[in-house]
Amino acid sequence: MGSEAAQAAQVVRVRGQKSHAAGDWLAIERPLEIRARTGQTTRVVSTTMRTPGQDRALVAGFLFAEGVIAHRRELLALESVSDDAVLVELPPAALEALEATRRPFVTTGACGVCGRASLEGLQGQAPAGDGAGASSGFTVSAAVIHALPGALREAQATFDRTGGLHAAGLFAADGTLRTVHEDVGRHNAVDKLVGTLLLAERLPAVDGLLMVSGRASFELVQKAAAAGIPVMVAVGAPSSLAVEVAEAAGMTLVGFAREQRFNVYSGAQRLSGI
Amino acid sequence: MGSEAAQAAQVVRVRGQKSHAAGDWLAIERPLEIRARTGQTTRVVSTTMRTPGQDRALVAGFLFAEGVIAHRRELLALESVSDDAVLVELPPAALEALEATRRPFVTTGACGVCGRASLEGLQGQAPAGDGAGASSGFTVSAAVIHALPGALREAQATFDRTGGLHAAGLFAADGTLRTVHEDVGRHNAVDKLVGTLLLAERLPAVDGLLMVSGRASFELVQKAAAAGIPVMVAVGAPSSLAVEVAEAAGMTLVGFAREQRFNVYSGAQRLSGI
Repeated sequence: MGSEAAQAAQVVRVRGQKSHAAGDWLAIERPLEIRARTGQTTRVVSTTMRTPGQDRALVAGFLFAEGVIAHRRELLALESVSDDAVLVELPPAALEALEATRRPFVTTGACGVCGRASLEGLQGQAPAGDGAGASSGFTVSAAVIHALPGALREAQATFDRTGGLHAAGLFAADGTLRTVHEDVGRHNAVDKLVGTLLLAERLPAVDGLLMVSGRASFELVQKAAAAGIPVMVAVGAPSSLAVEVAEAAGMTLVGFAREQRFNVYSGAQRLSGI
Repeated sequence: MGSEAAQAAQVVRVRGQKSHAAGDWLAIERPLEIRARTGQTTRVVSTTMRTPGQDRALVAGFLFAEGVIAHRRELLALESVSDDAVLVELPPAALEALEATRRPFVTTGACGVCGRASLEGLQGQAPAGDGAGASSGFTVSAAVIHALPGALREAQATFDRTGGLHAAGLFAADGTLRTVHEDVGRHNAVDKLVGTLLLAERLPAVDGLLMVSGRASFELVQKAAAAGIPVMVAVGAPSSLAVEVAEAAGMTLVGFAREQRFNVYSGAQRLSGI
């Protein structure tokens, strides 16, 4: 049951003034422990809420996004040791980088950046693949972008049942879906995607287009930039900082992609057919 | 400019195969520092991304949700010292509680809970107002719930411009809006709401109904339970853990509230008129 993404539930369904008991599906949200092994000792370095499934990819993508590792070879071990725990073993330098990210406090609504002890920490990141996407000659047509929301939705197996999962999909320039990942947390969905590419040694993904089901926070843009992805498309709105980060990284950022419409917030030169 | 929630931007608007340059509004996402003063020294204890505005309420709500403070009187000082920094002064015990929440690592997608060093940390919380809402005789009619999504949307001043903000609103049993709060982060919107109630000494809010614009994660339910709010209504889906937490807290949890429909996941006894 460890990799189930949805579970059955009983609900009262209300339509207008009428109600009846019904079966439903809930997207599963459950804690995952990341344990680090050093010599003979193992300790929990992190606990994150996530939808079970692709846990190893999630951990790999998370460590990559945090700048702890840059290559698959730095993952000396990466094992699912239970339904809700992944064990990693890292070279001393990476383990130090992991320790260096220790924060004095965890705050809400600011996943990943939250808790950095000073604002400088935000600018101090230099993700491994940064810049690779910006210099790629990748272009994409408006017609392909118009087709993406439907393609992503179709690929979301669990969303259909629960309505409760975010999705992140990597597409080729011609709109072919390469890989899709789901999670209750949108950051997790992108970490699973980037982690999958890392484990397959397919980073930087300079000929890929990232489509996300929700809004574009600055952190999602940062994760895409780190993975070398030149174009990111969101169904929802980008924040001010998301646009700033995309501009600084030389990325193309598209928002509100739905119903044959979208807005381009940066890097419009990669769009063709308009 | 410190409390502006949106900023102007230039975009390329694409409709089908046509495009034109246009003005647009972006929801602002910017870091806020929480600084703690002890005697003569001041240090940054946290940095969180948020939409500017109601920063003091955000910090108060955050400290309450984390179990660091239970009452307004524990905030010996709470001052906005710049556009992006709030200074707090806490009693020794609260400061210790703040220190005790130090996490070894910050993870993504799991704001607030993420980074707890072990799963026990999740269960170890005993929020101040917990249980107060469960024992209240609060009931609400289906007709009132049907009207909430429209009322919340109408009250969202900035969303209309940017399409990029989450909202949290507190309503009375008759559907009267009491207070509404917006943020790019949905956890922040709820922290701002609870913090506002705390500062007004109106906690626990046992006769209030919390409506949120997005999905119901377990953490939002936990924040509502801590504030003693007996009923939470979400426009989107709840996660499995959100339902578990609502059941354990004796709360009513409603999801998919839109277009004269909703599902009740727990506490259906508080619903009337169906």
